[in-house]
Amino acid sequence: MKKVRLGIIGAGRIGRVHAQSIKTGIPEAEIEIISDPFPGAAQKAAEEFHIPKYCEDYKEVLADPTINAVLVCTPSKTHAEITIAAARAGKHIFCEKPVEVEIDKILEIKRVIDETGVKMQVGFNRRFDDNFSKINRLARSGDLGEIQIVKITSRDPEPPSMEYAASSGGLFLDMTIHDFDMAYFQAGSEIDEVFAVGAVTVNPDLKKIDDIDTAAIILRFETGALGIIDNCRKSAYGYDQRVEVFGTAGAAEAENVRETNVKISTNEAVCYDKPLFFFLERYMSSFKNEIKAFVDAVLNDTPVPVTVEDGLRPILIAKAANISRKENRPVKISEIRKGHEIG
Amino acid sequence: MKKVRLGIIGAGRIGRVHAQSIKTGIPEAEIEIISDPFPGAAQKAAEEFHIPKYCEDYKEVLADPTINAVLVCTPSKTHAEITIAAARAGKHIFCEKPVEVEIDKILEIKRVIDETGVKMQVGFNRRFDDNFSKINRLARSGDLGEIQIVKITSRDPEPPSMEYAASSGGLFLDMTIHDFDMAYFQAGSEIDEVFAVGAVTVNPDLKKIDDIDTAAIILRFETGALGIIDNCRKSAYGYDQRVEVFGTAGAAEAENVRETNVKISTNEAVCYDKPLFFFLERYMSSFKNEIKAFVDAVLNDTPVPVTVEDGLRPILIAKAANISRKENRPVKISEIRKGHEIG
Amino acid sequence: MKKVRLGIIGAGRIGRVHAQSIKTGIPEAEIEIISDPFPGAAQKAAEEFHIPKYCEDYKEVLADPTINAVLVCTPSKTHAEITIAAARAGKHIFCEKPVEVEIDKILEIKRVIDETGVKMQVGFNRRFDDNFSKINRLARSGDLGEIQIVKITSRDPEPPSMEYAASSGGLFLDMTIHDFDMAYFQAGSEIDEVFAVGAVTVNPDLKKIDDIDTAAIILRFETGALGIIDNCRKSAYGYDQRVEVFGTAGAAEAENVRETNVKISTNEAVCYDKPLFFFLERYMSSFKNEIKAFVDAVLNDTPVPVTVEDGLRPILIAKAANISRKENRPVKISEIRKGHEIG
Amino acid sequence: MKKVRLGIIGAGRIGRVHAQSIKTGIPEAEIEIISDPFPGAAQKAAEEFHIPKYCEDYKEVLADPTINAVLVCTPSKTHAEITIAAARAGKHIFCEKPVEVEIDKILEIKRVIDETGVKMQVGFNRRFDDNFSKINRLARSGDLGEIQIVKITSRDPEPPSMEYAASSGGLFLDMTIHDFDMAYFQAGSEIDEVFAVGAVTVNPDLKKIDDIDTAAIILRFETGALGIIDNCRKSAYGYDQRVEVFGTAGAAEAENVRETNVKISTNEAVCYDKPLFFFLERYMSSFKNEIKAFVDAVLNDTPVPVTVEDGLRPILIAKAANISRKENRPVKISEIRKGHEIG
Repeated sequence: MKKVRLGIIGAGRIGRVHAQSIKTGIPEAEIEIISDPFPGAAQKAAEEFHIPKYCEDYKEVLADPTINAVLVCTPSKTHAEITIAAARAGKHIFCEKPVEVEIDKILEIKRVIDETGVKMQVGFNRRFDDNFSKINRLARSGDLGEIQIVKITSRDPEPPSMEYAASSGGLFLDMTIHDFDMAYFQAGSEIDEVFAVGAVTVNPDLKKIDDIDTAAIILRFETGALGIIDNCRKSAYGYDQRVEVFGTAGAAEAENVRETNVKISTNEAVCYDKPLFFFLERYMSSFKNEIKAFVDAVLNDTPVPVTVEDGLRPILIAKAANISRKENRPVKISEIRKGHEIG
Repeated sequence: MKKVRLGIIGAGRIGRVHAQSIKTGIPEAEIEIISDPFPGAAQKAAEEFHIPKYCEDYKEVLADPTINAVLVCTPSKTHAEITIAAARAGKHIFCEKPVEVEIDKILEIKRVIDETGVKMQVGFNRRFDDNFSKINRLARSGDLGEIQIVKITSRDPEPPSMEYAASSGGLFLDMTIHDFDMAYFQAGSEIDEVFAVGAVTVNPDLKKIDDIDTAAIILRFETGALGIIDNCRKSAYGYDQRVEVFGTAGAAEAENVRETNVKISTNEAVCYDKPLFFFLERYMSSFKNEIKAFVDAVLNDTPVPVTVEDGLRPILIAKAANISRKENRPVKISEIRKGHEIG
Repeated sequence: MKKVRLGIIGAGRIGRVHAQSIKTGIPEAEIEIISDPFPGAAQKAAEEFHIPKYCEDYKEVLADPTINAVLVCTPSKTHAEITIAAARAGKHIFCEKPVEVEIDKILEIKRVIDETGVKMQVGFNRRFDDNFSKINRLARSGDLGEIQIVKITSRDPEPPSMEYAASSGGLFLDMTIHDFDMAYFQAGSEIDEVFAVGAVTVNPDLKKIDDIDTAAIILRFETGALGIIDNCRKSAYGYDQRVEVFGTAGAAEAENVRETNVKISTNEAVCYDKPLFFFLERYMSSFKNEIKAFVDAVLNDTPVPVTVEDGLRPILIAKAANISRKENRPVKISEIRKGHEIG
Repeated sequence: MKKVRLGIIGAGRIGRVHAQSIKTGIPEAEIEIISDPFPGAAQKAAEEFHIPKYCEDYKEVLADPTINAVLVCTPSKTHAEITIAAARAGKHIFCEKPVEVEIDKILEIKRVIDETGVKMQVGFNRRFDDNFSKINRLARSGDLGEIQIVKITSRDPEPPSMEYAASSGGLFLDMTIHDFDMAYFQAGSEIDEVFAVGAVTVNPDLKKIDDIDTAAIILRFETGALGIIDNCRKSAYGYDQRVEVFGTAGAAEAENVRETNVKISTNEAVCYDKPLFFFLERYMSSFKNEIKAFVDAVLNDTPVPVTVEDGLRPILIAKAANISRKENRPVKISEIRKGHEIG
């Protein structure tokens, strides 16, 4: 069997999630090498996942002639350097989200990808969730008619630490970025304008760093459809991840996923399990599906399903949302694009 | 507007339920008179429901020339006497279930009904429940294909008193009788044989009177389809009333009905209301619907939807079930019919 | 029994809905008289609902010494005149929504109500829906913790005619007004600011009259909580009426109501009934409940549950939403109040 | 890491399912060798699952000193010979269901297992399904109170071929055997008596071989609780696998499992996915869980969760059900045990 020979750059949580997926469910890929600058981390992962080679410096991965693709699973501030080096080394690239938060750096990455001709897929895994991809098929097939409203509910079970929050770029760049991608994905349309409102209802300390933990956002799509997103960093009942697409012929709505389908009836109420705890539980199969899609694109030389442009879009929207929230006005995406050489 | 002029015989709970339904939702009927042998009961009901006349003796009702139909809402041991007298008085009859528990008496009623040509409808109200009548329409329309299995779950929220149980005729004649009718109604077929198993899991005192509070029953329909009923006199979560019809083209299942559709998500679980408390809450609209159907049959001179034969059938099955349980063997309905002159 | 003696002013659809509710489920009220300027309308309703007196001129109703309360069910442009006259005539008032669209007229009504000391309840019936009132009890009891987000989905099965739309005051004053009241009711907080976005996705002709049929709205409550409303004038699957309240201790969500609980499983899918068709089906019991609450307030001399101030609030928000949509900016409610003498 | 070294005997469908589970999710086990008498089958599986050794004769597996346990995945008529040989070779055994259909052979297996002291687990995988094991935890914890009724719905999406049916031992031994185990598992009680009724509603040809494709069964548990099972070989809407346990404190019910949680609302209805297609889809994780439990028992020298006795019980019940159906009478399990030396 023809296989994609992979290097994994970054042996943290998400790098290990991908290693696990590949070892247990993607026989078309073989992990040849893993790197991590943290001493011992790569070796430990190599042992756990039976990866033959490991190193600290990602450049060794790129220099490895046996591999033809890399998974970039490092902190996002290193993505530009690594993806550009990988592209120049002729390796196909799967890069975790966000690609970058600096628009110009994303544009530079895009130029290098275009020049070198390697494939680059960005890790918006939720597109590969079975629920959301079914909604997408329905929306794209015309079964729902013309799309009128896309509605996304996205609430986390637990807020991050203040340290994490402080370096996260804020709610919109850290958390809503997934929802901005989902909104585009389901509407099948570029976003024209965004209006974002924030509140602090969970952790008052966030006010000190001018961040928020609760948000309501309206999007206008270029088609004329409307988008609605609500976020909260803490939901008492766990991870709440719902998507609804309303069109002229009908609506499709993804309800939350729970561990079992057991209904318990007592003197008090009729109860079901809460939603699955957090993103690792809820989206595990989507992580596998996205790597599978990347491997297939490399093997068959077909386009990747999530491109660098797809990686750029949510950054633009998040930046617009930040301005919208701070200036309390709707902001056009074109306002953010201005001054950047975007093709 | 042409109206049916009604007398109500019996001002107990069910008589008042019907009075309420008629006053608030059946303008085609007018209640002219109500009777009850218990001193003051008829007067009190007459005042509450604005009924012009009241009396103690049901014969006064039958003698009233202004009425053309009666609702017989007295204890079941009086049904034969009253319905026969009513038929001879030329009044159309709505009679609560069970018509009678003595087979020969039911047959006698039937003969008089046939002779006099009055209409007589029996109070199997559950057939008129919106859920169950929808299932019936699906089953009869052929949408479910050939019916293979009919499955009925019927559990009460609270057991009756020992006094009630002792005079009730036992679980099968008192409680399961509704389910036997439902099984016939949904299968669209006569029952050929019954096997019934009982247990005492709620009130051990029932053993003293050789009654049970828990049962599992298998029916064979003449079509070859199978029926399953389970009963319990006490369900911790309230009144459990479900019906499922499984056919070669699909299945239809009526879930329980609850007071609201509110979903509450907390740290513990995702919960809904319990089912509606008991038969008055659950079947209130079916009580109105059955009287409406009776009134329509009288007004338009069309056949009643639940006949004396329909009143007899569940009695036969219940008696077969009693023998089955006591002798621990399947019992054919024909065995019960034997020796009775049944047309 | 002490009773409220009512006059109904207006024998159109909603006047008849209330007459029906009272006759069939509110024995504490007696309808003495009904008026309608359209020739024959009052007489027809009087016959149908057994109302002893009828007339064309509402002033005859107000002059009737036998009544102590009126239901104002006329077109909204007549509300100010009639409610003021009724208050001066010493009658308690139930007035359909919207009380008025002119802020100053509502304020004048309020002044007269305050002066005369009669009670006046406004017809925001949805507060009396069993689902939404259960959510409200949960929200007010603290069971959901601090309220963070209130989310309302409100979509009609069919758009109104262009004629109706043209005279309706636009989507926000005609349709969303109910949702603005619901948002306040569930959040338990005044609204500080609104941002509204509209689209025409159903009927392009609406553009000619600068109206919309699709909307997404964000509200900021004074508590810091956020509100989200989405509307559409046409939903393929029928009347979509959902409310969700998300708080620090949990969330409560009212799902749509359907005619039966029957689940049909076939080779294609597992299907349930669509939501109930439109507001008459969906909210019938809430119409009865609100009149019952008004009657109780009159009988027991207790405050009405929905006041003139409650009638004013959604008008202010709707006007703010209109400006927001047209000027594409968030609008504070205080901006609308400015210049009006509001207590 | 200490590992269980496994041989797999039988490279057919279920052997490959287990190989897949182990390779992708049970790192505590290593498959060393696989055998299958069909030429090439073992080699093909060895290549697919990276198993180092393969052979045709199962005796080579048993002779392999590197392995300490075997999975017996051969046709059931070979189970006695292979499991006895494996036990004598000192290998722990996981054996697919049914262990055997001859009672005396199962007893012989049991004697050898007891003598040799190896562990033997029987493949009733459904006990390891997340839904059903949650119900079991609730039932055993006392949360449901005293168990009163256990109700199992089990319907296949497609009937087997006549060839398969003819050699299957009949519906009860082939299909219901799983449900008999589930009934015991959930009730937590031995079965005292069974009454079984069958029908042919799918494939009339079954009458020629005196088999059935539709069944309703009542069980009496020794505790006094009642059990109800219904089966059909063909369900239009796919694999229907539901279990309900009703106790004095509440009920737990496992609903069917579907591929997504997407709700589609159209002009016709509100629809969800059908249940997962068949046992491979529905029970895939339970197959992994049962092997994981076996591996854990071997590694930690703890008792296996499903014993040879557990393998015998459903055979006894199925044989009783066969007699019950043919003689149309309830049959005690003790009647079947009689004449066999059962401890």
